[in-house]
Amino acid sequence: MSSRIVTPATDRLLSVDELRARLRQVGEQHYHHRHPFHVLMHEGKLTRGQLQAWTLNRYYYQSRIPIKDAIVLSRSDDPQFRRAWRKRVLDHDGEDTPEGGIERWIRLAEATGLSRERVVSCKEVLPAVRYAVDAYLDLVKNRSLLEAVASSLTELFSRDLISLRMNALRHHYPWLSGALDYFVARLDQAPADAQFAFEFVANHASTYAEQELAIQALREKCDILWAQLDALYYAYVQPGSPTSGAFRPEETRNV
Amino acid sequence: MSSRIVTPATDRLLSVDELRARLRQVGEQHYHHRHPFHVLMHEGKLTRGQLQAWTLNRYYYQSRIPIKDAIVLSRSDDPQFRRAWRKRVLDHDGEDTPEGGIERWIRLAEATGLSRERVVSCKEVLPAVRYAVDAYLDLVKNRSLLEAVASSLTELFSRDLISLRMNALRHHYPWLSGALDYFVARLDQAPADAQFAFEFVANHASTYAEQELAIQALREKCDILWAQLDALYYAYVQPGSPTSGAFRPEETRNV
Repeated sequence: MSSRIVTPATDRLLSVDELRARLRQVGEQHYHHRHPFHVLMHEGKLTRGQLQAWTLNRYYYQSRIPIKDAIVLSRSDDPQFRRAWRKRVLDHDGEDTPEGGIERWIRLAEATGLSRERVVSCKEVLPAVRYAVDAYLDLVKNRSLLEAVASSLTELFSRDLISLRMNALRHHYPWLSGALDYFVARLDQAPADAQFAFEFVANHASTYAEQELAIQALREKCDILWAQLDALYYAYVQPGSPTSGAFRPEETRNV
Repeated sequence: MSSRIVTPATDRLLSVDELRARLRQVGEQHYHHRHPFHVLMHEGKLTRGQLQAWTLNRYYYQSRIPIKDAIVLSRSDDPQFRRAWRKRVLDHDGEDTPEGGIERWIRLAEATGLSRERVVSCKEVLPAVRYAVDAYLDLVKNRSLLEAVASSLTELFSRDLISLRMNALRHHYPWLSGALDYFVARLDQAPADAQFAFEFVANHASTYAEQELAIQALREKCDILWAQLDALYYAYVQPGSPTSGAFRPEETRNV
């Protein structure tokens, strides 16, 4: 499959359907559903230690999502937009009850056998994961609001991946079945968020050049997700060589 | 009254009571309750046109408050802190019902006889007001989180000013009495917010130098509020010379 995105011959404004198709094409080609690390997970070929590494590293991403969304909030001077977008901060930070996505992710990590403290400290996160996540914060801080919103459009694709993943985790790792609340919540949250973000992008990209910037921002977000899994694969699968100081699963640790 | 702040001879950490006293001292000396523009307002000496200028210009400040608070949100990696702080964004942006502080301020401006569109566009805001408000955003973006939180501590003093102002407006400008919902809400919101912010500052300023930074941030915030009223006084009271393009009350406009 070629990674080249087919662009129309002219620079005319894309219709809403054409824009949606272009964004979906980015997802098909670059979203991390095809990443080898995910393929191993979905085939049940990851060890408990590798799942620990995944939850621990991805916690860093999860923990930065409400920060990312607060940055987006701070970049809009439209109370109507902020009222809609702040839902994302609430979804992740939660209340005491119900707890938010961050707490749910911690429980998933705990179900793999990690302690809460170890996960929340972020001390053992792979540097490359940190760089990728921080690049996401830079993107939403320094690009246009349009690009910041467009970069969230990976949520257009997340429902299918989450459904597949939940089935795979329940089948191959039944000991995780009781800790999938994070994904259950995202099944509803992500499509609603994606719909709002898509409409914003469709309404606010008023030139072909702006539409291209939005498409490019989604592509970059896909790269940011993909790069995290590259780092996990390198560190914990093949060659399986985590950076000094990074998390090491118990079963592969030299004692 | 001297504007010099009395500092202790030594650099030892202030007790919580000493810190509170130092912050209160900043408020007594520099908070805008004593500003000549406010004095005229409280004595009923402002014309309707001058009150229009005040609501129109201060709308720019109001409209930036949830942006400021979203920046603060984005600077904390503590979900507990964010859960508490996000209340501020909700208070100002509101829901459809109840409406938030921004909507309530628009209604106050409308009660002075301005159209919503004219206020919300911010096109006629005095440049000096804009600079002062933007300096507030810069402060919370570029200083430490401690200083960003400390700069909100003008809320320690706002309840008294709001009470005084509400009485004065009802007495001198009874035609505004039905539009004071913004202030009614702030009577409860501001002290609760100030209490949280004060506790954060007291707990997180762990050296005398950090306590001084927090006190200085509050002082700078006072200056930011004060500078807005200086600009209003200059433009609309004495000499009464608004910048070209800035709002001009009907009664002083050359027709």
